[in-house]
Amino acid sequence: MHAIIQTDAEDPSALSWQQAPIPELKDGEALVEMKFAGLNRADTLQAAGHYPPPAGVTEIIGLEGSGVVKEANGTTRPDGTPWKNGDHVGVLLSGGGYAQYAAVPQGQLLPLPEGFNLQQTASVIEVACTVWSNIMLTAHVKEGDTVLFHGGAGGIGIFGIQLAKALGATVAVTAGSAEKLETCKKYGADILINYKEEDFAEVLKEHGGADVILDIIGAKYLDGNVSALAKDGHIVIIGMQGGVKGELNIGKLLSKRGNISATGLRYRDEEDKARIVEDTVNNVWPMLADGRITHHIDRVMPVQDVSAAHKALLDGEITGKVVLEIPNA
Amino acid sequence: MHAIIQTDAEDPSALSWQQAPIPELKDGEALVEMKFAGLNRADTLQAAGHYPPPAGVTEIIGLEGSGVVKEANGTTRPDGTPWKNGDHVGVLLSGGGYAQYAAVPQGQLLPLPEGFNLQQTASVIEVACTVWSNIMLTAHVKEGDTVLFHGGAGGIGIFGIQLAKALGATVAVTAGSAEKLETCKKYGADILINYKEEDFAEVLKEHGGADVILDIIGAKYLDGNVSALAKDGHIVIIGMQGGVKGELNIGKLLSKRGNISATGLRYRDEEDKARIVEDTVNNVWPMLADGRITHHIDRVMPVQDVSAAHKALLDGEITGKVVLEIPNA
Repeated sequence: MHAIIQTDAEDPSALSWQQAPIPELKDGEALVEMKFAGLNRADTLQAAGHYPPPAGVTEIIGLEGSGVVKEANGTTRPDGTPWKNGDHVGVLLSGGGYAQYAAVPQGQLLPLPEGFNLQQTASVIEVACTVWSNIMLTAHVKEGDTVLFHGGAGGIGIFGIQLAKALGATVAVTAGSAEKLETCKKYGADILINYKEEDFAEVLKEHGGADVILDIIGAKYLDGNVSALAKDGHIVIIGMQGGVKGELNIGKLLSKRGNISATGLRYRDEEDKARIVEDTVNNVWPMLADGRITHHIDRVMPVQDVSAAHKALLDGEITGKVVLEIPNA
Repeated sequence: MHAIIQTDAEDPSALSWQQAPIPELKDGEALVEMKFAGLNRADTLQAAGHYPPPAGVTEIIGLEGSGVVKEANGTTRPDGTPWKNGDHVGVLLSGGGYAQYAAVPQGQLLPLPEGFNLQQTASVIEVACTVWSNIMLTAHVKEGDTVLFHGGAGGIGIFGIQLAKALGATVAVTAGSAEKLETCKKYGADILINYKEEDFAEVLKEHGGADVILDIIGAKYLDGNVSALAKDGHIVIIGMQGGVKGELNIGKLLSKRGNISATGLRYRDEEDKARIVEDTVNNVWPMLADGRITHHIDRVMPVQDVSAAHKALLDGEITGKVVLEIPNA
């Protein structure tokens, strides 16, 4: 098969479409012929050497995608019905998505959302599982809550806005331009904050504070997030674009009985991932099917152009998600 | 009535037994003739000006105690049966415990644990509600977990060790002397750490990390607590004896998918307190009744000697709890 191989570990742009061995299947894994891969910020971190794959996982980049089951290998859906060769699936991966074939644990094979094709499905898996697991399974958003998404016009943000609105929350977002904020508004955001012009914590305080904050910034926003929090609020940190170490004012956190969680999907064990995938399919797929959530794809690019795709993401050019198209094997 | 009045706001030891007005009852509050008050570290903080009562609450210190219902005023137990004048009760308070009478919201009136008298009950309320609400309702300790208590020989620690053991956990403690660690061991602690001689985080790492940490230190232990945490672990901060602001390594927290909560009982609303009290009575009172948890009272002192009692607590002389005896009205 062919796959994207990083030919120089020191150069994040040295990503080349080359021959590679087809992955060997373990028990409980299916072989999927990949048709599309979703692009994630984590992919750019891995290329830069900051986000190594878990032990035992391929060095090939790529956390999600879609394709056709080539060898079902006895894998089954959560209800016990077998996956069959030829089934169209979405896949959540610990790595290996930028390739013509991927070995996928059965708990990470997903049906396409009703009305979605393979191209639409490829980049919705990671964002759906991430947003659902964090705002529901970790932070338990409920009707009437105020939810703040940093980077509201990114893949996580656009998806999160719609999911939180579908759950009956008021949604606040930060973004760096009026244009991006307009996109957030279009998807339902109620409180629009240009972080270049306003202090997001002050704005949130005026609105009674955020019950849940989904944060991709980390250290730089830590104190502001605590300030922006409502009583019994929950900050969930899933990225550290603004640094790793920050000062935590425990007194301020305690005065709000606040909670901070720092989480990620990739290093979870298979059982945990299967649980999250099943819960996401049960709860979020119906919202994609009936249009409560629209999946925003910014562009589709050939996987061979992945280096340019990474650059576009890092340059802040992307609203929503990028899909990489994989040539037939 | 008489109550302990702080006669000089600048002097935490200026605590004098003086006349004071009997509290006025609101709807849903009973008047309780106090017989004993429990001493808490928070009381010493309030005397030092660092822990003001919530809005609308008396300046008289004291967060718990026991006594006799003087005016039931239509209050009822959670099951709807009325409290009656003459009933013996434990009380959870937002303030006002160092006094001959206290006004108590019905959700904060507790039955005595089976086999407990008023003296034994007075100092068990705050610690039971605090430990239960934090390790169960916030951190969800389960069988097989490892739970770390800092200050293992204090009131929270001794109670926590036994509760965590009753829940099937392995218990680690820190304390500052061999004698205190021996006390912790007697109550069931499995992993004994003298913080003057060992790095608690290193010891916990050797034991696979702590799933739950109940912390009274705050800033000074923040990084160590994150280091000591197991995957998906939870740090619950309920005190800041070691400072308010600390550096949080978000990357380290994220690598463990860790959670930090900072909580307290006092500033919760009545509904929240009633919920915690009911859950504590339902779950913890049976453990006190059948001896799974022994309540350790260090000493009983006249309430007039409260200043000496505060000093003994701050000097680290106390193992378990101090009870203040209140003269009859």
